[in-house]
Amino acid sequence: MPLTYPDRLFPSEPKLRSTARNLFEGIENLPIISPHGHCDPSWFAKNERFPNPAELLVVPDHYVFRMLVSQGLSLEALGVPRADGTKPEVDPRDIWKLFAQHFHLFRGTPSSMWLNHSFEHVFGIDVPLNADTANEYYDHIDTQLGLDAFRPRALFESFGVECLATTEGALDDLQSHKAIMESGWAGRVVTTYRPDAVVDPEFEGFAENVELFGQLTGEVTTTWTGYLNAHRKRRAFFKEHGATASDHGHPTARTENLDVAEAEALFQKAIAGTCNADEADSFRGQMLTEMAKMSLDDGLVLQIHAGSVRNHSSRVFAEYGRDKGFDIPKRTDYVGGLKPLLDAVGMEPDLTVLLFTLDETVYGRELAPLAGAYPSLKLGPPWWFFDSFEGIKRFREATTETCGFYNTAGFNDDTRAFCSIPARHDVARRSDCAYLAELVETGRLSMSDAHEVAHDLAYGLAKTAYKL
Amino acid sequence: MPLTYPDRLFPSEPKLRSTARNLFEGIENLPIISPHGHCDPSWFAKNERFPNPAELLVVPDHYVFRMLVSQGLSLEALGVPRADGTKPEVDPRDIWKLFAQHFHLFRGTPSSMWLNHSFEHVFGIDVPLNADTANEYYDHIDTQLGLDAFRPRALFESFGVECLATTEGALDDLQSHKAIMESGWAGRVVTTYRPDAVVDPEFEGFAENVELFGQLTGEVTTTWTGYLNAHRKRRAFFKEHGATASDHGHPTARTENLDVAEAEALFQKAIAGTCNADEADSFRGQMLTEMAKMSLDDGLVLQIHAGSVRNHSSRVFAEYGRDKGFDIPKRTDYVGGLKPLLDAVGMEPDLTVLLFTLDETVYGRELAPLAGAYPSLKLGPPWWFFDSFEGIKRFREATTETCGFYNTAGFNDDTRAFCSIPARHDVARRSDCAYLAELVETGRLSMSDAHEVAHDLAYGLAKTAYKL
Amino acid sequence: MPLTYPDRLFPSEPKLRSTARNLFEGIENLPIISPHGHCDPSWFAKNERFPNPAELLVVPDHYVFRMLVSQGLSLEALGVPRADGTKPEVDPRDIWKLFAQHFHLFRGTPSSMWLNHSFEHVFGIDVPLNADTANEYYDHIDTQLGLDAFRPRALFESFGVECLATTEGALDDLQSHKAIMESGWAGRVVTTYRPDAVVDPEFEGFAENVELFGQLTGEVTTTWTGYLNAHRKRRAFFKEHGATASDHGHPTARTENLDVAEAEALFQKAIAGTCNADEADSFRGQMLTEMAKMSLDDGLVLQIHAGSVRNHSSRVFAEYGRDKGFDIPKRTDYVGGLKPLLDAVGMEPDLTVLLFTLDETVYGRELAPLAGAYPSLKLGPPWWFFDSFEGIKRFREATTETCGFYNTAGFNDDTRAFCSIPARHDVARRSDCAYLAELVETGRLSMSDAHEVAHDLAYGLAKTAYKL
Repeated sequence: MPLTYPDRLFPSEPKLRSTARNLFEGIENLPIISPHGHCDPSWFAKNERFPNPAELLVVPDHYVFRMLVSQGLSLEALGVPRADGTKPEVDPRDIWKLFAQHFHLFRGTPSSMWLNHSFEHVFGIDVPLNADTANEYYDHIDTQLGLDAFRPRALFESFGVECLATTEGALDDLQSHKAIMESGWAGRVVTTYRPDAVVDPEFEGFAENVELFGQLTGEVTTTWTGYLNAHRKRRAFFKEHGATASDHGHPTARTENLDVAEAEALFQKAIAGTCNADEADSFRGQMLTEMAKMSLDDGLVLQIHAGSVRNHSSRVFAEYGRDKGFDIPKRTDYVGGLKPLLDAVGMEPDLTVLLFTLDETVYGRELAPLAGAYPSLKLGPPWWFFDSFEGIKRFREATTETCGFYNTAGFNDDTRAFCSIPARHDVARRSDCAYLAELVETGRLSMSDAHEVAHDLAYGLAKTAYKL
Repeated sequence: MPLTYPDRLFPSEPKLRSTARNLFEGIENLPIISPHGHCDPSWFAKNERFPNPAELLVVPDHYVFRMLVSQGLSLEALGVPRADGTKPEVDPRDIWKLFAQHFHLFRGTPSSMWLNHSFEHVFGIDVPLNADTANEYYDHIDTQLGLDAFRPRALFESFGVECLATTEGALDDLQSHKAIMESGWAGRVVTTYRPDAVVDPEFEGFAENVELFGQLTGEVTTTWTGYLNAHRKRRAFFKEHGATASDHGHPTARTENLDVAEAEALFQKAIAGTCNADEADSFRGQMLTEMAKMSLDDGLVLQIHAGSVRNHSSRVFAEYGRDKGFDIPKRTDYVGGLKPLLDAVGMEPDLTVLLFTLDETVYGRELAPLAGAYPSLKLGPPWWFFDSFEGIKRFREATTETCGFYNTAGFNDDTRAFCSIPARHDVARRSDCAYLAELVETGRLSMSDAHEVAHDLAYGLAKTAYKL
Repeated sequence: MPLTYPDRLFPSEPKLRSTARNLFEGIENLPIISPHGHCDPSWFAKNERFPNPAELLVVPDHYVFRMLVSQGLSLEALGVPRADGTKPEVDPRDIWKLFAQHFHLFRGTPSSMWLNHSFEHVFGIDVPLNADTANEYYDHIDTQLGLDAFRPRALFESFGVECLATTEGALDDLQSHKAIMESGWAGRVVTTYRPDAVVDPEFEGFAENVELFGQLTGEVTTTWTGYLNAHRKRRAFFKEHGATASDHGHPTARTENLDVAEAEALFQKAIAGTCNADEADSFRGQMLTEMAKMSLDDGLVLQIHAGSVRNHSSRVFAEYGRDKGFDIPKRTDYVGGLKPLLDAVGMEPDLTVLLFTLDETVYGRELAPLAGAYPSLKLGPPWWFFDSFEGIKRFREATTETCGFYNTAGFNDDTRAFCSIPARHDVARRSDCAYLAELVETGRLSMSDAHEVAHDLAYGLAKTAYKL
């Protein structure tokens, strides 16, 4: 019996199912556009084998280890590196066994769908993972990882990826992207400009980062003008390495449009380390508007990923650092927050600002009404915890009626779990076809229109929105 | 092939569909009660032909032109008048062509359902609107608009409207309503008292408006007592022209119950133009409670339409003025906001306060619990962006379990798009029958009860709640 | 025709329905674990007959009388006692008639399902309740209440209750629990430690309550240390009477982790009656963290029922007191609110904190992400207004994908309406099976896993989470 059911995620009712399947068959094999994510570009630059099943599928995936931690396992036992960079001495096979023993915790979650999809469609396994099959799984996957067909570039090709965007900090040297471009390999891997470390006064080492930013660019980043010029130069540098977008992970959706003197004064506080929390938020907000203005010049798409309280557990942050599964969403105000940016540049049809949220209450109340009015705005797909069947369903149901399909930007997998990419696109495509089938069978969309929309959601909208 | 599918909006599953259809057949042809909306009463007073397809269906409908603007078209090209009253010189046929070319943007939206319903059921068209059929559509509709059967009164009758409420400002002379009443025409068109311009200190020209208010009523509206008396007189004047309700479009649901001295002082600040934002909100809140108290005397139903940030884009507001598709909902607190009003008069069984929201999160958390307790409160139908199949479904699912059906007030179309009225009631009736069919087929409601409830939702509740 | 449809709450689509029924058959007859509720333990201590149908099913049930009040009936006419303890002189049969005449108000509500379930499955009635059948109902039920088989202990047994937790204030003498334990009756009825009256500075008589708390425990409750010791002693006393949990009904989810000097100072203000609203909230928040720390020692499970604005109508509160159907939910922040407690003890795998909410927006945004990370956290079931088919559906759909099933705590009936207990568990089990059937038929869960999960949701998770 397969681990993945062929008609998965299609509605049970036979007519709906048949329509959903029909729509899906038209898009199932479209190339994958992955315009936003967190894969490591060195995988494709070096094309070395992935070390072992645990370090491929468990240790780097905070979706996975957070769930195990929530039931009492320790990050230590799962091999997660500490904040100081030291790695616990754990046998990867033991990590895998722990994972297998607790695989029932993922019942009903997208992680379970993605993992089973990888097990079956990437690694060719057809028995369920559990304590009994843990060793068999480990050996099987580990062996395959040693084959050429399982090296990063080969998987990239077999996954049908047309374009993959990674995300690098403003200070990154982009050596991996350079190496990929110069290697002659046909795979398209592009970077994305993510300047949080030099834009967020509360980021660890902000002042030093800005200093380094100046050294990298030859700009005097102790002045507001020089600092903005440094951004312009780095954006150009990122564009040379394929970037078509910038990305901003801010705790709120606040924007500002201060006059130059105010902005300069706030910047001086920021690099002096004297911003209070409100001023730091204001500075980040000002930088969103600055980035939008630069986008009008250089064409980069502006992505705003707002609303995550990073590192909620002080203890986990102190011991293990960032990205350890303790980032928790909070309420986010887009209507008030975005107003200064939108008053400045929101009516520009040549600007593209993509909005993401972890606060689903804003889909229908704020985001769809905004995107259904401002020419510069489009909605990114359901993000993170909501990259799932139910998440996609709620997103479509809450936004389509107000802003339609053409103010949305297709799908993002947003993942650092490489093998989950085809699984995530599969889930998204199926979920969208299930939704479209409902519209068709209830007389809200014609079948020919639905075929077109399905294609757009799976491929065209992402390609257009991200200028790929 | 028809543009509208006969079983539209009924669930796909055959048993559910059959039950929904069965319920719908019992109410499909009930007269339309339209107790809240924004049609222009002069249409029915003058009974002149509608000018052309673009000025009937595109130019005045912010649902339609906002979507076109969101994809880069200009308000200018769509013929939308500027704030200074000048109209762009655009051929209405060119506006119609732009609309037709971009009609795919409306896929999956209620606008597309309403428009297709009008095309087919009002104008007898059976080909889809697109760039190829634009001219054919224009000519066909334009010709029909010249026929007597397509004049406002004839359409009113053929739509099966039993009663239509319009909305006029407190300073309006109600000449059109007077003319309709005196014309001998049997159609029932009533007004609604909407005093925002003399109640909201932040409204353009508030002080002058209040002065004019005094002149109209012969009251000294520089005193709190005279100002309240002026409201009493205007409410009586509106009642003479059919009004059974007042309506209030406030940014928040805040109410106040200040003592007379405080209220007088706040009123003096308001007419002096010295209220800060919080005081302005407080004054609006006080006026809701004053209106509720007047309702105890004169019986007008109090409608609160709270939570819209009007004119979000400063640029669009400066150039084009109000109601241009840039009103965006925001979070709204009803539990705290309404407490002063409810403590004052909330337990009065003879008072009817109807609550509307654009913040769907309050359906289950605030509105249904409040309406399921206070005798004065009832819930208006899903409003604006949520007047749609999914919007109605979410409303019913989130409120019925807590406050039942009998604390709701039937359907409002709330439209200025006259031809969409039968379409909107059709969608609402079908959506409610779909919901009721689910209850019946899952053993939550008997079929005989469902028939009664369907009738109440389509007709009885609105008539009772609005005292029509 | 029965009042309850055998396949109620199962999806209409035949394949889904069959799967849901199949899952339900495996758990339908499992014993009832009722780990949180508000039954009166004296019923089981004294085992006297219930007085009459009205006083069993209408007068004590705020779900029922609030709905009648919302449509203009008075609490007086419904026999609800006043705040001063006096009872209106109303014939219980007249109360029953009013209830029967207005029974249509409950259409589509869980109350109607629960009541019909009791009418049919407890009292053996098969005609609908309405004005015509009111007398027949009254006589039939009243007669049965006089039979031994309808006394509290007999019903407890026939309902299949394995364990029932009640809730008592910190000052309660637990005489009924003592009597039950000493009676030799096999039924397991345990208490729960609910110290609101000595933890909330805004509770009526707080200072006197704390003084009495000292007398009961022999501790000097005028000092912070003595006050905490008094809690420890009472918790131990409650444990002796079966308690495995404490429960806290706070208006917000705020927690604090003050140092001892700050806490002592705040406590002194609290007993002096000089806390302002923010300080009172802070003190309650500090006490949640203190309770969590005590739980680490004594093992009691900590339940947080946050977010209800109690006694919203000042008039109803003044005349009738607490728990009269005027408790209204409000927005609640768990991410910020719980951080101090979680930073103190959240990573402790031996601690169990159960979170409840009346703000459904936090399910996916806050609660599931928190519970899917912190080992100490689990989610209680949908609470109060959301203990319903749609409520359970939304809860599962919003939480499962993020925190799975094993970070939830099974079902609570949370009721003071004894006869509704089997009905509520029936609804919850059916609703969960309907949800699981969807997962199975859309390839998200295997059937064998679904059987296991169904059993866990109905029985195992509650038993484990509450250590019963």
